[in-house]
Amino acid sequence: MHEITTYLRKLATHTSSRIIESLEELGAAAAEKVSKGAYGHLSSRIDVIAEDALFEALDTYGLSWNVFTEERGFVDNGDEYTLIVDPLDGSYNAEHGIPFFSVSLALSRGGLNDVEYAFVRNVLCKIDYWAEKEQGAYKNGTRIRVKDRRNLFVIYLGKKSHPRAFEIARKVRRVRSFGSASLEMIMVAEGIADGCLYIFKSGGALRIVDIAASTLIVREAGGLVLDDEFSNLSMNLDFKERKNVICVSGEHVLEVFE
Amino acid sequence: MHEITTYLRKLATHTSSRIIESLEELGAAAAEKVSKGAYGHLSSRIDVIAEDALFEALDTYGLSWNVFTEERGFVDNGDEYTLIVDPLDGSYNAEHGIPFFSVSLALSRGGLNDVEYAFVRNVLCKIDYWAEKEQGAYKNGTRIRVKDRRNLFVIYLGKKSHPRAFEIARKVRRVRSFGSASLEMIMVAEGIADGCLYIFKSGGALRIVDIAASTLIVREAGGLVLDDEFSNLSMNLDFKERKNVICVSGEHVLEVFE
Repeated sequence: MHEITTYLRKLATHTSSRIIESLEELGAAAAEKVSKGAYGHLSSRIDVIAEDALFEALDTYGLSWNVFTEERGFVDNGDEYTLIVDPLDGSYNAEHGIPFFSVSLALSRGGLNDVEYAFVRNVLCKIDYWAEKEQGAYKNGTRIRVKDRRNLFVIYLGKKSHPRAFEIARKVRRVRSFGSASLEMIMVAEGIADGCLYIFKSGGALRIVDIAASTLIVREAGGLVLDDEFSNLSMNLDFKERKNVICVSGEHVLEVFE
Repeated sequence: MHEITTYLRKLATHTSSRIIESLEELGAAAAEKVSKGAYGHLSSRIDVIAEDALFEALDTYGLSWNVFTEERGFVDNGDEYTLIVDPLDGSYNAEHGIPFFSVSLALSRGGLNDVEYAFVRNVLCKIDYWAEKEQGAYKNGTRIRVKDRRNLFVIYLGKKSHPRAFEIARKVRRVRSFGSASLEMIMVAEGIADGCLYIFKSGGALRIVDIAASTLIVREAGGLVLDDEFSNLSMNLDFKERKNVICVSGEHVLEVFE
């Protein structure tokens, strides 16, 4: 593990402890909408607490990277590296007692495809996933790789979903949806799922903060992260950008689109 | 908590400890298909271990109820009560490292609608849910109740699903699917979800062992558990019976079927 990854782990540990404590303390108040974030969305109390905890930890460890994040927007510290953060991916789950949410951290010298270090913590299960560019992907220290034919797809469905998402859901054996894109994409990386589909009718489904870390983890585990035209997904540090995302364990999985 | 519920809790504790230990020990071997169960399905190693642990615990605590279960079938001890058991609901999740599975125990003097005591343990999160007939439903000791308008539906989707399931998935805001019916139905009981739909094109989706406990928990929390003709769900101790299930927080939720 590179020294930078050990720092990402420290940030994730501090942030997740604060999330767990605060959810216990606040109960239903964790879900109250309290401020407007950089994406123009309303952030909940627990979102704000998680981001504050992250900044505290950056300070504690003397890390002066730029930060690209939901609440504060782009914090330019004049550094070469930018930390692309979702301090709480799966906020709705966390707020509503569904035990499936993460801290997602990615360090990049540019946009999505320049991420060099990625770290995702499954907060409640206390599982760590990380990747370093060209050095593979790991789960609690063990190398992970995609696997073939798991018969399980994660598909985002609901009134915003594109008809194609429903067509695929009719074909495959098992459809699941857990409500945290970072942890769902990692199911592909660790050989649990064949693919994850986030395809909206209009606009795009996901933001760079949601998937900057999980994209490197999937690619380093041998999987593909694509846009809805089947090109390698590329995203910028841009609060207006949302893209549809197709994440698969290998090209053969794209048969489901035929 | 009635004395009988304290025994159900002891059974659940013993069974879940064994599940957790065995998953760690066995790794991928937990998923190997090793025997044919009472429903004609192939059971995995971890299913068999979970059921063996349950029978050990019944023996330890000197409980002589009849038992209706996946592996051994109907074990008739000549008792008035039958324990309707899924010692591991969400086997696929447990086998594949998805942190969402339960031990489900229901004590009945007849079929589904005669269940008097119900207990469900979320194994990894160590959360206990229980209900006693006409005494309400509880989560770790706190009373739970359904809530209105959560904008979240759990819908089983995949190639076996009925077209109606897809129609509803197109209408609602958030669709989730976690792969453990007992824990999903309890999301309705504790006010996280509006409804859970398990509707197959042919045959039925669920077995009495999957939902005997969660059905009482939902009803005691103020929710409805219905069949696919919107009548109160009723099921017998019968290994051939599978039914489609609609579980909702209240009658108004049935609007989504219009």
